[in-house]
Amino acid sequence: MKIDLNCDLGEGFGIHDFGFDADIMKYISSANIACGFHAGDYMTMAKTVELAIRNNVKIGAHPGFPDLQGFGRRNMNLSLEEIQNLVTYQVGSLDGFVRSSNAKLNHVKPHGALYNLAAENQDVANAIAKAIVNYNSDLFLYGLAGSKMEESAKKFGLNFKSEVFADRAYLDNGKLVPRTMKGAFVHGAKNCALRIESMIKEQVVQSITGKWIPINAQTICVHGDNSEALQFVKTLAQELRGNGYEIG
Amino acid sequence: MKIDLNCDLGEGFGIHDFGFDADIMKYISSANIACGFHAGDYMTMAKTVELAIRNNVKIGAHPGFPDLQGFGRRNMNLSLEEIQNLVTYQVGSLDGFVRSSNAKLNHVKPHGALYNLAAENQDVANAIAKAIVNYNSDLFLYGLAGSKMEESAKKFGLNFKSEVFADRAYLDNGKLVPRTMKGAFVHGAKNCALRIESMIKEQVVQSITGKWIPINAQTICVHGDNSEALQFVKTLAQELRGNGYEIG
Amino acid sequence: MKIDLNCDLGEGFGIHDFGFDADIMKYISSANIACGFHAGDYMTMAKTVELAIRNNVKIGAHPGFPDLQGFGRRNMNLSLEEIQNLVTYQVGSLDGFVRSSNAKLNHVKPHGALYNLAAENQDVANAIAKAIVNYNSDLFLYGLAGSKMEESAKKFGLNFKSEVFADRAYLDNGKLVPRTMKGAFVHGAKNCALRIESMIKEQVVQSITGKWIPINAQTICVHGDNSEALQFVKTLAQELRGNGYEIG
Amino acid sequence: MKIDLNCDLGEGFGIHDFGFDADIMKYISSANIACGFHAGDYMTMAKTVELAIRNNVKIGAHPGFPDLQGFGRRNMNLSLEEIQNLVTYQVGSLDGFVRSSNAKLNHVKPHGALYNLAAENQDVANAIAKAIVNYNSDLFLYGLAGSKMEESAKKFGLNFKSEVFADRAYLDNGKLVPRTMKGAFVHGAKNCALRIESMIKEQVVQSITGKWIPINAQTICVHGDNSEALQFVKTLAQELRGNGYEIG
Repeated sequence: MKIDLNCDLGEGFGIHDFGFDADIMKYISSANIACGFHAGDYMTMAKTVELAIRNNVKIGAHPGFPDLQGFGRRNMNLSLEEIQNLVTYQVGSLDGFVRSSNAKLNHVKPHGALYNLAAENQDVANAIAKAIVNYNSDLFLYGLAGSKMEESAKKFGLNFKSEVFADRAYLDNGKLVPRTMKGAFVHGAKNCALRIESMIKEQVVQSITGKWIPINAQTICVHGDNSEALQFVKTLAQELRGNGYEIG
Repeated sequence: MKIDLNCDLGEGFGIHDFGFDADIMKYISSANIACGFHAGDYMTMAKTVELAIRNNVKIGAHPGFPDLQGFGRRNMNLSLEEIQNLVTYQVGSLDGFVRSSNAKLNHVKPHGALYNLAAENQDVANAIAKAIVNYNSDLFLYGLAGSKMEESAKKFGLNFKSEVFADRAYLDNGKLVPRTMKGAFVHGAKNCALRIESMIKEQVVQSITGKWIPINAQTICVHGDNSEALQFVKTLAQELRGNGYEIG
Repeated sequence: MKIDLNCDLGEGFGIHDFGFDADIMKYISSANIACGFHAGDYMTMAKTVELAIRNNVKIGAHPGFPDLQGFGRRNMNLSLEEIQNLVTYQVGSLDGFVRSSNAKLNHVKPHGALYNLAAENQDVANAIAKAIVNYNSDLFLYGLAGSKMEESAKKFGLNFKSEVFADRAYLDNGKLVPRTMKGAFVHGAKNCALRIESMIKEQVVQSITGKWIPINAQTICVHGDNSEALQFVKTLAQELRGNGYEIG
Repeated sequence: MKIDLNCDLGEGFGIHDFGFDADIMKYISSANIACGFHAGDYMTMAKTVELAIRNNVKIGAHPGFPDLQGFGRRNMNLSLEEIQNLVTYQVGSLDGFVRSSNAKLNHVKPHGALYNLAAENQDVANAIAKAIVNYNSDLFLYGLAGSKMEESAKKFGLNFKSEVFADRAYLDNGKLVPRTMKGAFVHGAKNCALRIESMIKEQVVQSITGKWIPINAQTICVHGDNSEALQFVKTLAQELRGNGYEIG
């Protein structure tokens, strides 16, 4: 049985490195690669695409708001047409490197403030889905489980992978426990591995109140931007592989 | 008999318009569209691609140095790997819009300082040719007649269109008369139309000294960034069409 | 009696000109000069400062959001500390040119989305006022009449010039008629001159319903970004001068 | 006796940290703070100025080419007017933060490719010196010992501090041994401390061939962008202080 671990990569800029891209590649199956708007540039993109290919990791575009200084984490008041076009631009630019390496682009996962906005706002989610399906209808959209992005994907006939988080707690209604709330994070890679297995195998997770709730889990978001996160993913991957799962 | 007129387009930025894109489209057959590095952005690119499609004009990427303020007109000391990757990025980004409109990218023409550098420097020309052929070996490189770009295209098996200038004089050795020299520019659209016809039909042009010299002319560069230039191209196209040529 | 006409200037970028800066300088008394974030760059700033000095026009910084592509017209979700620091940065950068020309910076007027936000949001207005007063407590803040900016200026002991608009209608409550509402704009330069005179001399204006309402008018906003606007300001200035006012 | 150690600081960008700014401040006496063109932004500038003030370190502007991606390390073909204006802009912007903290700007040290260009090219050095002296004639220019910058400072009546490098070897003619040559770097902080002392006290240094050559040393360049460099500076400062020098 397969479990897809996805991670944001290529988020350095110029001389500024960011995260443990080369290390984390060994433990994941999907790479979301920054496209130069919130992070990344044409050098990091070329390098990260090569790294993904060498590690047999699926390649996705990770488009964000045009805001290098804010790392795409702050909201910008853009029109729907602007959102659609900035996704087209970034997906195309990353696919430039993918095609040049005779590889195939697999998916698109919006970044930061754009991801959060698209999860809540149907129009924004539609603009993103339209951009992707117009560009290449074989691509997957990786988006928050149960969010507006899932509805948009359905509407536009776009392949969707419902994303859950390895180390985040869930409310009874299936939403993430806000980062500012106590208990928002789940600790221990082994513990998280067990949660992931139940999410993937049985499509349920234990909420913060202890209730078992349904969850649609098709890809697991992990992080590699600090050494602790890297160690977590390493242990997680070992646990999952030890329990008979394939990361893929 | 066909004559290809190519023009740089989509070179505005944000609220700043640049040139008479909608008007000039009626008189040209190849559009070189800026990709956001020296000019253009994801909105101008979407709009200009649509405009080209509606006017049945061939679409090309027009990549430049990453220098919005300098309009890609000043040299930057980049490595060959950087040059290759910035071409890949920009070609991919424009192709994002082209593919999303179910159209086909036709060519790549480097911009400004990058064009001039590639005309003289074989390594730079090679880096550009490699980027293009790796991305899509069906594309054409539009480059200066008799320049290093032509050699690079040959070396990498890349389709090449040899570019001449409608309103520029040539030295006896086939090189352009430098802009700063007296007689660098040829005046009068009718006069220029005649020059173009002899370049296309007989592959010769009269040099600044009056000598007939051989020239490889497969595409003609025209401009649309001011009203005088627009009028010139309009008259030129009418002359050529009147003389039985098709702009295409 | 003096009437201060202020205008946004230096809002080109790179090769992209914007507006009739050289012409409009003859009819205004305060120039709000873009500082490179929403528009402008170190070349336009140097040139525009020189132009203002030659025309004996008071020089102000015109800081905006860091968004060249959006011309600072779209909201960005920045922290108060970020807003304070981006004002400090931009005011300092413009003052670089002013001091280098042995001139004196007179005022600061926020631009676009930042202006609108500061008019409504006390915290943002405070952040801007703090940045200005910390930098140079002799400067004026030019801000919307009756807005949060006026309160912030009072709170921080900052000189304030209450801004009204020459060609905009006012509601009974003293607020601007929204641009989207019928009757938002007042037409005819002579008509506008009369309105300005009553605003300056008697501090009243006739609202959109015909009522005379009080208004605090210390500086009048005019525009020079198209030829019609330029002609309007020219006529306006002639009217005012003809009626015995000094633009200053 | 005083020895001035200067270091480049505030060279992060957005979420990307760079170097050990807080640590290195304890061992240096002059901070060259990036101004947002090659690195830095309005947040890093505010923070780094505060840090310098708290550590009683002299504050300098560190202007570079407008090239965030290239970290100002690659040459750009700018006009002299552009170079003068970009220095004015950056010096003004940093001084914005310095004045807002009631501190005084002390010096300007050009960065990277701009520094190297100014060391060799008299016109570029003149443009920089003019920008500084026009802005504030009390400022110091920190520049390469014996370079064109020194001549420009003299010409424009600008205060100059002749810079030497703690860990670099010198040729017999007083120029730096190129980084690519064997023996370009001098190892061991204690060893370097001795070299510095002879440079400062006796204005001589032992060249790579063993000859004692004259050198004009008024400020020593050190680095803090990696942990090894930090340790080097710490040891160097301790040695110098132990030998009776004051870092200042």
